[in-house]
Amino acid sequence: MSAFQVLVVGGTHGNEVNAPWLIENWEANLNLINTYGVNFSTVIGNPNARNQNKRYIDRDLNRCFHNDLLNNELLHDFEIHRARDLLRDLGPHSSNPNHLVIDCHSTTSSMGSSLVIYGRRPADLALASLIQAKLGLPIYLHEGDASQHGFLVESWPCGLVLEIGPVAQSLLDFNIVFKTRLVLEVIFQQISYIQQRMVNFPKKLIIHRHLKSIDIPRNSFGLPEACIHPDLLGKDWLPLAANTPLFLRPDGFIYRYEYNDSPVPVFINEAAYLEKKIALSLTKKEIWPFNHIWKDTIFELINSSI
Amino acid sequence: MSAFQVLVVGGTHGNEVNAPWLIENWEANLNLINTYGVNFSTVIGNPNARNQNKRYIDRDLNRCFHNDLLNNELLHDFEIHRARDLLRDLGPHSSNPNHLVIDCHSTTSSMGSSLVIYGRRPADLALASLIQAKLGLPIYLHEGDASQHGFLVESWPCGLVLEIGPVAQSLLDFNIVFKTRLVLEVIFQQISYIQQRMVNFPKKLIIHRHLKSIDIPRNSFGLPEACIHPDLLGKDWLPLAANTPLFLRPDGFIYRYEYNDSPVPVFINEAAYLEKKIALSLTKKEIWPFNHIWKDTIFELINSSI
Repeated sequence: MSAFQVLVVGGTHGNEVNAPWLIENWEANLNLINTYGVNFSTVIGNPNARNQNKRYIDRDLNRCFHNDLLNNELLHDFEIHRARDLLRDLGPHSSNPNHLVIDCHSTTSSMGSSLVIYGRRPADLALASLIQAKLGLPIYLHEGDASQHGFLVESWPCGLVLEIGPVAQSLLDFNIVFKTRLVLEVIFQQISYIQQRMVNFPKKLIIHRHLKSIDIPRNSFGLPEACIHPDLLGKDWLPLAANTPLFLRPDGFIYRYEYNDSPVPVFINEAAYLEKKIALSLTKKEIWPFNHIWKDTIFELINSSI
Repeated sequence: MSAFQVLVVGGTHGNEVNAPWLIENWEANLNLINTYGVNFSTVIGNPNARNQNKRYIDRDLNRCFHNDLLNNELLHDFEIHRARDLLRDLGPHSSNPNHLVIDCHSTTSSMGSSLVIYGRRPADLALASLIQAKLGLPIYLHEGDASQHGFLVESWPCGLVLEIGPVAQSLLDFNIVFKTRLVLEVIFQQISYIQQRMVNFPKKLIIHRHLKSIDIPRNSFGLPEACIHPDLLGKDWLPLAANTPLFLRPDGFIYRYEYNDSPVPVFINEAAYLEKKIALSLTKKEIWPFNHIWKDTIFELINSSI
């Protein structure tokens, strides 16, 4: 086994500028982030897109980590090559192996700081529960969405996406940088506690489980014919009551939420999701009892790789 | 003379999506904006950039309206061609002449609704003073900035830039759309009052005159080494006292404003201006008495073109 090492990624999307800026400052000044003695490496996910100040060159890098794409030798999109390179150089089976990845993003949605996990991997759930117990932040479980797959973190044995918002694309904002650093330090702290076997896991985990995404109403040409209703802006993480206004057409017509199931909306008005036909996503808030398998799995991952 | 006509432009920057969205809805439903019977035409400034969801293809269209560029036949940047086409099709000397242009923009800065004028053209000052008297919005007089020229409105006899913020790039926001529509309706209303010779000009005009722009502190590689200080975010239009924090480095070092002249900052943290090396601009607030030449000029422009 190789020594346990954490990979911190920023700039997986080239126009999310705060995390890569923090990472470059951190590389120049290693005291900037307290890693509690945990080994780590850093990388800018998509430096070419960042240089061009756009989300991606050919396709979304954070949808490229899927074997159907990675193994298809006919595909030469820039981001597929980049995904292969990242795995070759920093993947779990590379010569510089990383066992856990933190992929730092920002969002134009008013979601504050949150974690996103993909599927129900025990090690992800264990780490997320520690961060939630320390910081209280919400966790969005992205699963059961056939239209979205190939996320970067899925190619490492354990991985969390960190989402901080709201911040416009391409805009440096110290509050976003500060919050990114805060969560990273707590992650390193908890990992070091696992290494020292002095960690306290919580008894439960609060999850916001993905139900479905809702597109903006479009006309027959596919163009948006309404906006998010202004009253809904900033209401991420707040249950959606029946009859709540969702969208507003310029002529004043209001589209309302029709059901009584009180889902919890997230990613309301994320600018990058217009092309993915996602105006907002709906989740169900669930409280899960902590499962000892989660703990055993992350202990095995972190403490057996020495 | 040809009949007086107003040109409304949206999407001069392709990733400012709210005004062009309003314009397309307006074209489909002419009742959407009350134009008080004033003739008008509409156009999407940079449709190709809009389709690519970026500010511009080759260069900023709103810096291309300068004779040195327009008349240089060696230049074939996409936006220079576009500027020539707009003038050929919709310019004051075209077969579909427009005498006054409103160029609708949005900004990531928390500036609310404001007008920008370039230089001190009497007709611009007259129209801006009417809008300010009706809505109270601030006016940024951009002049004396050798690094910035070739603005679209300068190629028409009278023209205002409308800036509404804050809104992220690429993001539809009904509040921005609504405010854009409100200012457009007041502009049309005041023009119709001039046509009916029933307009009341105010006695004074409050101007925020451009002094200079300040770049973000950069390291020896030219990369930003600090952010706007979080306490400064959202403080557009508020006088800057000596010793106020301007920028914050990740290591905690604070850059402060050093002088006692209490300038008024605008465009604090406009995402598109990082490449222009503008972290914020400083202005001086001035109260100008209304000059009857302004009135005579706009009356001549609007009422003699019938």
